[in-house]
Amino acid sequence: MFKGRTVALMVVVAMLLSSILTLTLTGQWTFAGSNAVSSGIFADAFGGNKSGIKKIETAMDLVEKNYVEGVDRNKLVDGAIGGMLNALGDPFTSYMAPETAQQFSEQIEGSFTGIGAEVSMEDGKVVVVSPIKGSPAEQAGIKPKDILLSVNGESFEGLGLNEAVAKIRGPKGTKAKVKVKRPGTANELEFSIVRDDIALETVYSSMKQGNIGVIEVTEFSMNTADRFTQELASLEKQGMKALVIDVRNNPGGVLQVVEKMAEQFVPKGKAILQIEDKNKNRRKMNSAQGKSKNYPVIIITNKGSASASEILAGALKESAGAKSLGETTYGKGTVQSSFSKEMGDGSLVKITVAKWLTPNGEWIHKKGIEPDIPVSQPDYFSVAPINKEKTYKFDMLGEDIKSAQTMLSGIGYDPGRKDGYFDKKTEAALEKFQAAKGLKANGVLDAKTAEALESSLIDQIRDPKNDNQMNQAIQEAQKEITSVASNE
Amino acid sequence: MFKGRTVALMVVVAMLLSSILTLTLTGQWTFAGSNAVSSGIFADAFGGNKSGIKKIETAMDLVEKNYVEGVDRNKLVDGAIGGMLNALGDPFTSYMAPETAQQFSEQIEGSFTGIGAEVSMEDGKVVVVSPIKGSPAEQAGIKPKDILLSVNGESFEGLGLNEAVAKIRGPKGTKAKVKVKRPGTANELEFSIVRDDIALETVYSSMKQGNIGVIEVTEFSMNTADRFTQELASLEKQGMKALVIDVRNNPGGVLQVVEKMAEQFVPKGKAILQIEDKNKNRRKMNSAQGKSKNYPVIIITNKGSASASEILAGALKESAGAKSLGETTYGKGTVQSSFSKEMGDGSLVKITVAKWLTPNGEWIHKKGIEPDIPVSQPDYFSVAPINKEKTYKFDMLGEDIKSAQTMLSGIGYDPGRKDGYFDKKTEAALEKFQAAKGLKANGVLDAKTAEALESSLIDQIRDPKNDNQMNQAIQEAQKEITSVASNE
Repeated sequence: MFKGRTVALMVVVAMLLSSILTLTLTGQWTFAGSNAVSSGIFADAFGGNKSGIKKIETAMDLVEKNYVEGVDRNKLVDGAIGGMLNALGDPFTSYMAPETAQQFSEQIEGSFTGIGAEVSMEDGKVVVVSPIKGSPAEQAGIKPKDILLSVNGESFEGLGLNEAVAKIRGPKGTKAKVKVKRPGTANELEFSIVRDDIALETVYSSMKQGNIGVIEVTEFSMNTADRFTQELASLEKQGMKALVIDVRNNPGGVLQVVEKMAEQFVPKGKAILQIEDKNKNRRKMNSAQGKSKNYPVIIITNKGSASASEILAGALKESAGAKSLGETTYGKGTVQSSFSKEMGDGSLVKITVAKWLTPNGEWIHKKGIEPDIPVSQPDYFSVAPINKEKTYKFDMLGEDIKSAQTMLSGIGYDPGRKDGYFDKKTEAALEKFQAAKGLKANGVLDAKTAEALESSLIDQIRDPKNDNQMNQAIQEAQKEITSVASNE
Repeated sequence: MFKGRTVALMVVVAMLLSSILTLTLTGQWTFAGSNAVSSGIFADAFGGNKSGIKKIETAMDLVEKNYVEGVDRNKLVDGAIGGMLNALGDPFTSYMAPETAQQFSEQIEGSFTGIGAEVSMEDGKVVVVSPIKGSPAEQAGIKPKDILLSVNGESFEGLGLNEAVAKIRGPKGTKAKVKVKRPGTANELEFSIVRDDIALETVYSSMKQGNIGVIEVTEFSMNTADRFTQELASLEKQGMKALVIDVRNNPGGVLQVVEKMAEQFVPKGKAILQIEDKNKNRRKMNSAQGKSKNYPVIIITNKGSASASEILAGALKESAGAKSLGETTYGKGTVQSSFSKEMGDGSLVKITVAKWLTPNGEWIHKKGIEPDIPVSQPDYFSVAPINKEKTYKFDMLGEDIKSAQTMLSGIGYDPGRKDGYFDKKTEAALEKFQAAKGLKANGVLDAKTAEALESSLIDQIRDPKNDNQMNQAIQEAQKEITSVASNE
């Protein structure tokens, strides 16, 4: 499926950042600071020689002695731990081998070490989308559209984006000598860049007409609360009259971070959330210092808004008088804790250690939080790409034709139906579209036509006027400003 | 999907036997007798305290101490062993918990303990299809069509077939008091049946016109070779002029069993198969006592013919001059060995310990054996059932309509197209079918019409004249008899 944000990534920028974010929902939400179980406690337990452990060891011996191919012990161990955690039936309890664990902590920290350039792969070339503000790459003079050729003598030729990015990255303080081909410049350029900590941006704000502030939060990393507070202060200083917080497709993050953010809206002493531990004891997590804002707040959610996003939505709705708009959220009502030190080799187990509930005590797990104002995006926001190896014409049927019909309809060419049957009206709409795009107007859905359709659709999705949810949130904010004003 | 044999099971008989056969391909093929690694050898290894094992134990401790819900240690261990074996990427290396391991050995042994009645579920009732010849059920007087109501006072009301079967089964020598409702008899009957070992039938033979013998082998259990030898001798005694062996949908079984069977056709000293061990050493497994048959042999295979079936097909083709007919086989070229004693608690690990190759040294893994004479079944043999909760009519489309079109075409009502678009010709065909079945001829595909379609289709599939592969095999056998005769 394309989604609004995904499209941008897919087509124009495969960001250096995003290539690191291999985490899915499962790894988004940690309950840092709860690592109460120290390694010391285990020292005794290990002497116990558990019957179950012995059985696992027997199976391992049998495989190593008898399997028809060579066996990698580490793979067996990773598989065993993964399988053990899977047996709990909880997708949020999981094992990460050292490399994945490293990416996970960078994710949580909200930073990584590198040169700080967003890059994409275009026609097999590593192209800079833009250097991150203030990063070593920017300071060294890297520009958008620069083509990166090699780093420290290692060519990027034939490499995939992730492989190239892995070569560009490296520990803080080390040097990356980057060879660059700059469009319009004959000679290759070389930059010597010292790698540094690069912060991931997770907060984006803007002021809309009528002094309506919008803050988009893409995840809840360690530095997200501070960035949010900055942007909020800046909007308030500009005289913001209403705030729209956008947590669509925000998979979550760190509990303490979302608490800090919610605290700015929830009056002191009122609950932000409740925590229920394994002994079913509940504890209210109250706001320690916040107070009500004197402007209306609206939060936009969708089914990709999970865990910390849902805590924020629950707190704002139940304890801060905010409204939510959009779609029902993902529904993840559990808290995970990461154990890395105990594993001793850089690997990590993330374990569900508690449930969280909304201020009113509701467990939203597998249910999600329903919006006060349900608003969905146009159907073409979630259409599947067309398989370009096939060609379709009148009287055929299938999922690809359904996609094409949804796209045609989305960009204003009525295909008559959107169920995947290629009828005469669909053919006529396709001919019209082909003519408009300077393609052979034969009413046949071939690869070229499919590409043109997708490209037109992406422009359509990117156009802010088609973001139903954001537009309605802004309208709703305007309505609330008016109603507040008339009550004063 | 319906398949020829599946249909029979699904609709008329859900056999007592088949309900035990939970094994898939993964469990069909063992290399008994290779358990060279004794438990003794491991005793030393356990002292080693492997680093990997310690890591698994740490993860287990962390989960047991921190997970938000209660944790079942056995589940963790089963999950760990399963995950460890999965990490090898070999679907035939697997772990079985005690209960599954028990079913597996019954499968391999070709017997189980019970009363010996094939039963099915009809309108929520447990109905006897037929008592197995010579079984305690037959001796006690159980008849086909008997409805089983309860066993030892436990009613079958509301139970599924597998649950009821589990209650009927039990250890050898124990008593099952079965209450029975016999159609045409007013009072309930009660039978007291002593459970015994019941052999699973895996060999079925018949003599066709022109003295062509047919032997169907459904799997290669411990007693299959003896039964095969009996049936073969009986057919030969009757003056068989050609033999058709049918291993369609036969998932395999025990290596020694198929060797014994192949030996009857492969001349002494010629290879039945080759075995390649983990050190890449190859060994030819030669026929120790067989000789060529003086009649033509044809083996029918399909994509459900796996492992031991493929060994038989390879041996007959390459070392016994037989022809194969049907479809390319599954393609499983590995040998497994089961280790149960070492596990110590009734569980079992099945490990791929070798590869097998055809007599000529070809490894058919993931390729299968192509038939000399390719013959496929009619397309309606593998049509998917129709979802009866939906109703379809003219101008709609979907997979269910595709199924209905394939069924209509299969039973002789031309639907015009079979791609899932409900056009006027499909409507007309459906009306004709409805009229013939005494249904309201409105051209609408509703639940009643779908049921009538499926029931007509099942009759069609069961009719031997539609078994293309068997019919062509018999024709081919006749041709070969003639050609042999004319060469004499």
